[in-house]
Amino acid sequence: MTRYIGSGEMADILRREGPEPILRRLTASLRADFLRWTDFDLSPRLASHSAGGVIELMPVSDAELYAFKFVNGHPGNTRLGRQTVVAFGVLADMATGYPLLISEMTVLTALRTAATSALAASVLARPESRSMALIGTGAQAEFQALAFKLALGVTEIRLFDVDPAAVAKARANLEGRGLRLVCANSVAEAVAGADIVTTATADKTRATILTPDLVEPGQHLNAIGGDCPGKTELHADILRRARTFVEYEPQSRIEGEIQQMPPDYPVTELWQVLRGDAPGRTGRDEITLFDSVGFALEDFSALRCLREVAGAGPDLDLLPEPKDAKDLFGPVFSKEGAFDRAA
Amino acid sequence: MTRYIGSGEMADILRREGPEPILRRLTASLRADFLRWTDFDLSPRLASHSAGGVIELMPVSDAELYAFKFVNGHPGNTRLGRQTVVAFGVLADMATGYPLLISEMTVLTALRTAATSALAASVLARPESRSMALIGTGAQAEFQALAFKLALGVTEIRLFDVDPAAVAKARANLEGRGLRLVCANSVAEAVAGADIVTTATADKTRATILTPDLVEPGQHLNAIGGDCPGKTELHADILRRARTFVEYEPQSRIEGEIQQMPPDYPVTELWQVLRGDAPGRTGRDEITLFDSVGFALEDFSALRCLREVAGAGPDLDLLPEPKDAKDLFGPVFSKEGAFDRAA
Repeated sequence: MTRYIGSGEMADILRREGPEPILRRLTASLRADFLRWTDFDLSPRLASHSAGGVIELMPVSDAELYAFKFVNGHPGNTRLGRQTVVAFGVLADMATGYPLLISEMTVLTALRTAATSALAASVLARPESRSMALIGTGAQAEFQALAFKLALGVTEIRLFDVDPAAVAKARANLEGRGLRLVCANSVAEAVAGADIVTTATADKTRATILTPDLVEPGQHLNAIGGDCPGKTELHADILRRARTFVEYEPQSRIEGEIQQMPPDYPVTELWQVLRGDAPGRTGRDEITLFDSVGFALEDFSALRCLREVAGAGPDLDLLPEPKDAKDLFGPVFSKEGAFDRAA
Repeated sequence: MTRYIGSGEMADILRREGPEPILRRLTASLRADFLRWTDFDLSPRLASHSAGGVIELMPVSDAELYAFKFVNGHPGNTRLGRQTVVAFGVLADMATGYPLLISEMTVLTALRTAATSALAASVLARPESRSMALIGTGAQAEFQALAFKLALGVTEIRLFDVDPAAVAKARANLEGRGLRLVCANSVAEAVAGADIVTTATADKTRATILTPDLVEPGQHLNAIGGDCPGKTELHADILRRARTFVEYEPQSRIEGEIQQMPPDYPVTELWQVLRGDAPGRTGRDEITLFDSVGFALEDFSALRCLREVAGAGPDLDLLPEPKDAKDLFGPVFSKEGAFDRAA
C-alpha cells in the first residue's frame, strides 16, 4: 500500500505542527541534504512547454530513496480562479522501485521554497538584516515572510503587488505573527533601504520587476519568480553587479535569471557555500543574488521530512498486490476479486 | 478533484469489460495515436538506475493532454514475493497543468504492451501466422497470448519458462479461452515451426534467450523483455539477420536489443509502417523483429482509453482548491479547515 496525503490531511498536519515549527524541520532536512549533495543522482527537470505554461517532472534519488514531483506553472490560471502552480510528489524505495508515499505538494512546495530561500539568505544576506521587501504577494508570499523571520530574524516586511487585493490578503494572513507589515505604493518604495528583496511574481515573460537603479549596495536579492525559459524578473544589469548563487547550475542556466547571461557568467552552487567549499557574502556592500528556480533535491528533502512528520495514515491501492507476483492476469480475469481491498 | 483508479477499481473495470474487448479498445486507441505521431512532444524516458533495478518516468504530450507513467523494473523483486514491474500513471490538462486522472498502471501496462506487440505483428508477421512461442510466462504472458489471438488469429501458444510454476500458472489462466496450449520442454521446442516468437523474460542481464540457430526464415520475433541498458534477450547475430522495427529510435538505441549493435544499424519506427510511409514485412522468408521497450505514447493512449472506459468515479483531494487562488496560506493557517473535503 502507498501512503496518501491529500490536501485535506496536509492542512491538518501543518495546522497541528504550526507554520514556524514545520519551516524549522524543513530547513533542517534541506540543510542535511544539501550537505550531502554528492550522494544524489541529479538531473535537470523534464519540462513540457505549451502556450499557456509548463508541466514539469523533477526526479532525484540517493541510494535509498527516489523522489519526484509533478508541478505545473500556468500564469493565466488565476484568471480562471485556479492556481498558477499546483504540485504533487512521490517517494519510492530504490531497492524495490515501489512507491511509498504520494502527497499533495502545492502547499509543501511553497513551504520548501521559502525554507530554501531563507537557508540561502542565512549565508548570503548581511547578518544584521531585519527588513525585507516582498514584491509579488501571491500564493508564496506569507511562507517567504515567515521563513525569513525564523531563519534571519527579519522583523519588517514591505509588501507590494500590482493587485491590491493580493496585498490585503498577505497582510491579513501575516497579521499577529510578530512582523511589522508595511504596504508600499511602488516597487521602489518597498525596496528602498530594505536589507533583503524577494521577488515572487508569476508572469511568464521577460519582466523587469527590479531595475538596477533600485538596488542598493549590500542588499540580498532572493529571486524566486523567474523559473522557466522566457520567465525572468530582474534586469540583466543587476546580474552584472551581483554575485549570483544557484541551486543546480545546469538547470538554472536554462530556467533562472541567468538565462539572460552568457554561458560563462560566474555562479556558485548553494551547497558549496553551505559546506564551506565556496564563500558566501564576502563584503558588506556586495549585492548577493539567490537565483532560485526550485530544484528536485528540495522536494526530496520536503517529502522525506513530511513522511516523518505525518506518520501512519490512509493509503491507496495504487499497486496490485497479487499473491503470486508472476500472476497479474489471474486475479483480474480468472480469480474474482483478488485485488479488491475488502478481499 | 483528480479522478482516482486504484488496482481494485481497475480489476472491476477490466472484469466488467472483459480482456478481449479491452484489448480491442486499447489497440484502436494505440493505432489512432501512432497515426498522429508527429502531433506529440516526444522524449526518451528519464531513468534512475541502481544495482537492483531502475525507476523511470515516461512523459509525453499533445496540444490537449499530458501523460506520464512512473514504472520500475526490479528483477529481484519476485524473490521477495513482489512484482518485477509496477506502475502508475497520470493524465493532465495541458491548458491548466491540472492533473485529471491518476491510475494504477501495472495491469494497464501489461495490456497496452500486449496490444502494441499485436499491433506491430499485424503489419510485420506473415498474415497466415497461427502459432506463437511464448518464452517467459511471467506477468505479461497471458496478455500477450490473448492480444495475438485477437489481432492475428493466433490459435496455438507454446509456453516455455525456466520456472515450471510460471508455465502452470499461464496455462491455467489461458485455459478455456479458445487457444491450443502446448507446454514446451525447451526454448528450441517452443520455437521450432512457430510463426511468431515472443520473448518476455525479466533478468537484468545480457541474456541470450534466443540463439541464431533456433530462428527460422519467415518468423516474426516480438522481443519485449529486453528494455533497459544491460538487459537484452537476443543474440546479436539474430539482429544481423532480421529487419528490425522499434517504437522510438532515440530510446530504443539505449534500451532495446539494438543497444548491442552499432549506431548505424538500420531500424524502422513502427508508426511509419502503420502510416504506410515505410514497408513492413517485404517477403515470406524475411525475419522481422519488433524490438519493443515500451514507449510513453503507449501509456498516453492507454490512459486516454481508460478515462473513457472508466467514466466518473472516486477522486482524490490531491490539489488544494482555495477559494482565492492567490491564497494558499490562509486556508491552512488562518481559516480553519478550508481545504477539508467535508467543509
